[in-house]
Amino acid sequence: MKIYDYGIAPNPRRVRIFLHEKGIDVPFQTLDILKHEGHTPEFLAKNPLGGIPVLELDDGTCISESVAICRYFEALHPDPPLFGATPTEIAQVDMWLRRIEIYLMSQVGLVWLHGHKATAHLLEQKPDVAEFGRARTHHFYSILNTALEGKTFLACDRYTAVESVALATLDFAVSMVGVPYKDDHINLKSWHEMMSARDSAGA
Amino acid sequence: MKIYDYGIAPNPRRVRIFLHEKGIDVPFQTLDILKHEGHTPEFLAKNPLGGIPVLELDDGTCISESVAICRYFEALHPDPPLFGATPTEIAQVDMWLRRIEIYLMSQVGLVWLHGHKATAHLLEQKPDVAEFGRARTHHFYSILNTALEGKTFLACDRYTAVESVALATLDFAVSMVGVPYKDDHINLKSWHEMMSARDSAGA
Repeated sequence: MKIYDYGIAPNPRRVRIFLHEKGIDVPFQTLDILKHEGHTPEFLAKNPLGGIPVLELDDGTCISESVAICRYFEALHPDPPLFGATPTEIAQVDMWLRRIEIYLMSQVGLVWLHGHKATAHLLEQKPDVAEFGRARTHHFYSILNTALEGKTFLACDRYTAVESVALATLDFAVSMVGVPYKDDHINLKSWHEMMSARDSAGA
Repeated sequence: MKIYDYGIAPNPRRVRIFLHEKGIDVPFQTLDILKHEGHTPEFLAKNPLGGIPVLELDDGTCISESVAICRYFEALHPDPPLFGATPTEIAQVDMWLRRIEIYLMSQVGLVWLHGHKATAHLLEQKPDVAEFGRARTHHFYSILNTALEGKTFLACDRYTAVESVALATLDFAVSMVGVPYKDDHINLKSWHEMMSARDSAGA
């Protein structure tokens, strides 16, 4: 098996952090998305949406979507359980994963596409769309900050896949896209420092 | 336990269809989202994002996000397995669920907000945003249609949660928002007819 990857892209990094926390080693193959290698007919046959990461199994089966790839390895190697151990934990992990993907990453993506100079050649950027995305991102930062009040981790009383996915997403948002935390996001900043200090953050 | 619901909203319907397929009976309580009952301080304490459905357990724990709620019941009552039975199936179900939420529902939502008269009083509608969402929705219809070539179900060789979530989302897109299938979406139309003929479609 192998995973198609691209170094600085945030979504493959979710998988690398997760696999490091699980102690699983999988070969990665770089796909140069800046050279549009995600849109060749050969790659679109692996993922019709053209995105990375994609996990290709030895029988040719391809799994895309970063969290679905993580869940594959969780099913194959259940310990340590990073998607929750009880029905309530399983649901809370899934709830937070979806919140991060649907309400955070989507909004950060708007700022990236409509408000960053790196993407200016790709489309006609609309500053008001970037501003909308920036406001929604800050709103979600506040929700994360409140959820972390008196807690070390977001979904459970220990590290889960939510931390892997959130760290990759928030590093992208804060450092690459440029949506910094506000002064009162104290719990979130503390969480971010702790997760960044783990070995897996270097993955 | 109970689930906060609203009759015609598409996301709670995903859960109702899923629970019908699982043979699980849960009490539902209507939350009048048109009267902003999703944004009272009391409800925001249950779901800070203000959306429905929300599952409230007897100990007060609240789970939001339709698929996370379905996954809770899958963990509690594993049979029949609607989130996949093997690691590959589990990953493929999760992949399709994420594709439907991230690439289909988000785009249908743009058409709903920016191109439907029912929401015209809520915001300054931008026709080009609606047009963009409509084109992306049609693109995803084509991906679904291709994926269904020679197959009865989207993710596995039998009914899964993907069908529950896709039917609720596509009924919303086609009938309520008004983004019809194109003539060549033959596999998708056939899938839609079959899923609509199941008892669960009335849930």
